[in-house]
Amino acid sequence: MRLRNKPWADDFLKEQDDIVVQQPFEHKGQWGELFEEPKQPLHLEIGSGKGQFIAGMGRQHPEINFVGLEFVKSVIVGAVKKVIKADTKNVRMVNENAKDLRELFEDKEIDHIYLNFSDPWPKNKHEKRRLTFKTFLEQYEAVLKPGGQVTLKTDNKGLFEYSLVSFSEYGMILEDVSVDLHADQDPLNVPTEYEEKFSAKGQPIYRCTARFTT
Amino acid sequence: MRLRNKPWADDFLKEQDDIVVQQPFEHKGQWGELFEEPKQPLHLEIGSGKGQFIAGMGRQHPEINFVGLEFVKSVIVGAVKKVIKADTKNVRMVNENAKDLRELFEDKEIDHIYLNFSDPWPKNKHEKRRLTFKTFLEQYEAVLKPGGQVTLKTDNKGLFEYSLVSFSEYGMILEDVSVDLHADQDPLNVPTEYEEKFSAKGQPIYRCTARFTT
Repeated sequence: MRLRNKPWADDFLKEQDDIVVQQPFEHKGQWGELFEEPKQPLHLEIGSGKGQFIAGMGRQHPEINFVGLEFVKSVIVGAVKKVIKADTKNVRMVNENAKDLRELFEDKEIDHIYLNFSDPWPKNKHEKRRLTFKTFLEQYEAVLKPGGQVTLKTDNKGLFEYSLVSFSEYGMILEDVSVDLHADQDPLNVPTEYEEKFSAKGQPIYRCTARFTT
Repeated sequence: MRLRNKPWADDFLKEQDDIVVQQPFEHKGQWGELFEEPKQPLHLEIGSGKGQFIAGMGRQHPEINFVGLEFVKSVIVGAVKKVIKADTKNVRMVNENAKDLRELFEDKEIDHIYLNFSDPWPKNKHEKRRLTFKTFLEQYEAVLKPGGQVTLKTDNKGLFEYSLVSFSEYGMILEDVSVDLHADQDPLNVPTEYEEKFSAKGQPIYRCTARFTT
């Protein structure tokens, strides 16, 4: 377990209570109050990893409030440090394994969800664990506002192809697709640590944004 | 004009009247009658080029009737030769520039449409010419049976991304997506001449199948 290498992680996460939300389930329906600008749109990243994406997005979009979920304690520590370094006030981190987002968020509380380099669970028997399986889409649909969007970014061919079909079969509309994001040279793309590493090897990065119709 | 190189093309196409449909507009609503098995499903390829796909599909699927449209006379000649060589009775070729498929086919007459390596028309101002622009999707929806499918195969990143979004925005459901078809090693894939050439260069081939919900 990576956790053993960082026994100080608990203390660190408690100390950084301006960034790390200490009792996240108590904020259901009231996440805006955790931010300086409570009425700004709320964007959620599921699986923030080392935090480069959410810290970068926070800086790039001061007009948006961001919440990052990361359940691996030794990993979220790095993300919190990135957010501190980014010196931005609109990012909050949550160290929870939210099996059901509806426990953390009220219906229609979120504007946009990001899934970055999620575990592809390539075996068919693990389909239900993929974060774009229909039971997860049901959760996203509930906590997102009507017309709310999900953006998936991955280097995994199988997860990408699966997700496009899963979004579509669920009734979501694809708004934007890239089958080689770095070829597009989108100046607004904020790469994750993982993305930089794999893109440098010549691996295409896939991205799509889909919206719910309800 | 490539046509000038093949002045014998007209005669050849008239002679091959067991394969080349001579008066295609007269068969609207009655395409099945042109085949030995009139009640088999009818699949249409728009832009058959040199014919490797439709000839190969004809051999692979004797249980399906195929019609291939190709409006370049000097090109369709090659396709007709491929169909002759494939020695299959379930493929008919049409040398027409069908601007509106509804002139050639009755509503709900077709089961499946294939678009292989269609012109990508990359400039925004030419969007309306892309074969996955909404006005073409309207035609496909009309001539396809309810739940009828469109399969697009291309090496063009821009056309593929555009088409996924266009299908989805139109209300079609994505059933199958591959962002690197040759990596999948699908034994049933019938490559076009163009596909073989570009795949050999390491270019990924993209494919998707979408169905209408009506």
